[in-house]
Amino acid sequence: MASTIFSYCSSSATTWVFTFNKIRTVAMSLNTETSAKVIDGKAVAKQSKYEIKIEVLNMKDAIGVVPGLDVILVGDKKDSTEEYLLNHIVDYNENPKVHGILIQLPLPRHMDEARILNAVTIDKDVDGLHPLNIGLLAKRDRDPFFVSCTPKGSIELLHIYDITIKGKRAVIIGRSNIVGLPVSLLLQREDAIITILHSRTENPEEIVRQEDIIVSAAGKANMVRGSWIKSGDVIIDVGINPIDVRPRKSSRLPVGWDVCYDEACKVASAITLVPGGVGPMTISMLLSNTLSSAKRVLKFE
Amino acid sequence: MASTIFSYCSSSATTWVFTFNKIRTVAMSLNTETSAKVIDGKAVAKQSKYEIKIEVLNMKDAIGVVPGLDVILVGDKKDSTEEYLLNHIVDYNENPKVHGILIQLPLPRHMDEARILNAVTIDKDVDGLHPLNIGLLAKRDRDPFFVSCTPKGSIELLHIYDITIKGKRAVIIGRSNIVGLPVSLLLQREDAIITILHSRTENPEEIVRQEDIIVSAAGKANMVRGSWIKSGDVIIDVGINPIDVRPRKSSRLPVGWDVCYDEACKVASAITLVPGGVGPMTISMLLSNTLSSAKRVLKFE
Repeated sequence: MASTIFSYCSSSATTWVFTFNKIRTVAMSLNTETSAKVIDGKAVAKQSKYEIKIEVLNMKDAIGVVPGLDVILVGDKKDSTEEYLLNHIVDYNENPKVHGILIQLPLPRHMDEARILNAVTIDKDVDGLHPLNIGLLAKRDRDPFFVSCTPKGSIELLHIYDITIKGKRAVIIGRSNIVGLPVSLLLQREDAIITILHSRTENPEEIVRQEDIIVSAAGKANMVRGSWIKSGDVIIDVGINPIDVRPRKSSRLPVGWDVCYDEACKVASAITLVPGGVGPMTISMLLSNTLSSAKRVLKFE
Repeated sequence: MASTIFSYCSSSATTWVFTFNKIRTVAMSLNTETSAKVIDGKAVAKQSKYEIKIEVLNMKDAIGVVPGLDVILVGDKKDSTEEYLLNHIVDYNENPKVHGILIQLPLPRHMDEARILNAVTIDKDVDGLHPLNIGLLAKRDRDPFFVSCTPKGSIELLHIYDITIKGKRAVIIGRSNIVGLPVSLLLQREDAIITILHSRTENPEEIVRQEDIIVSAAGKANMVRGSWIKSGDVIIDVGINPIDVRPRKSSRLPVGWDVCYDEACKVASAITLVPGGVGPMTISMLLSNTLSSAKRVLKFE
């Protein structure tokens, strides 16, 4: 896996990124009536990581440098202070061996998330969550330094599976800063006609039924039912619902799905699995962003 | 008018802001079958300017300072260089008497718009077009220093006329950085369910007919017909179409309308005029933003 050749600077913050794949595999009954093509994020991500690995090895051979990624997981540590974390970020910002910094969200409640995210230098913000990167993504004639990993991975799946975006009606269910917002901006950049639903939408099913591409990031398990979907729809499920996963230590990790797969797969033309859909793409995009960052700063083509 | 008590720093760039009201009044036949309430931006803006004037006079009395606004109109001057303009911006950024800077768009083609707009310091960007201000507007838990004037004025009209936004379906026709994008972000902040159409939308009338609030900023005269509108819709026309206004010197100034008023006013519940709708609000919001900027920097409540 490409991950093994990335460098990770040791710190008292936890290096976390590659535990993502360890999330419990949720049992899924693949209905025999399935008509939908399964969008296999795991396979796409594997190929993507392989390609990244080749590039990283080339870089190492050519200039003796590998991309450096720091993932800061504060988790529920109540004894971590904001200043302590900010000092870490300042160190990483200045460290030329670090090309990407990712702050794992959510942060403990006693920390100011905006202040922490703003502290990450814009050109190492590989999670693309700095407001300047979001603003650059939103403006049509501009380009962000980085696009947020899960949204980028979601759109990349549509590309890989040759799903037309231009001119299609796309609905984004959920308007979070980390998924709904950047997904909506990316789809607009690709000339989709977008509609954004949120928890205060009274008749979501009526609206969803009119759409061609459904990206669901609502965080409500099995919310999108088969009856919401019209024949031929494409479904990207970015469900990250805190389903009870005891005896896991934390229930805050992303596990779950928004779309009732058993029903949806009979109607849709293509659909992602959860897990094995967008999740693995997130990691792959994080590596891709870090590689891009290293190439940019090192002027390596 | 409040304008007279704002200070304008003299410069070789043209001070422009208050010529906006001089735009030719386009003859408009107000159909006798009108059912729609006319949203009178001119009257709202007049009241808003009056309130701003009172605040400015209070400020002047209390601390002897008035807000300073610089509007830079480069227009079609082919002999203006980017460096010349950037030098002006640097001066204004550093000048404590200047609380707001507005670059009139479009810039001459030989200039890099992004570079120019980025040069305006974020806390004087009263037009809210800096990507960081856009990013802060987009993120749900953040607030921009300033919201772009025309979009802010459009939403302000809905507020003044007690038009419910929360939970309503709102369509934005056009996705420009200066109108469509910030309007869509503002409507999302107010819990509308938004849909964004653009020039590559094949069946705009079908989509528009499903919406409750229509904000049109497509730049295509009379595009939105009566048949696109359902009974009770609210229409904000931000049409800025380069209608031939000879013998004016420039045909690039904003004149025109997107919505066929004669047809729409028979169906809609409320509709803006053009001119006299969003246009005057733009100026009022510019003054409001500059006043806010001055109050912020001078710590004047």
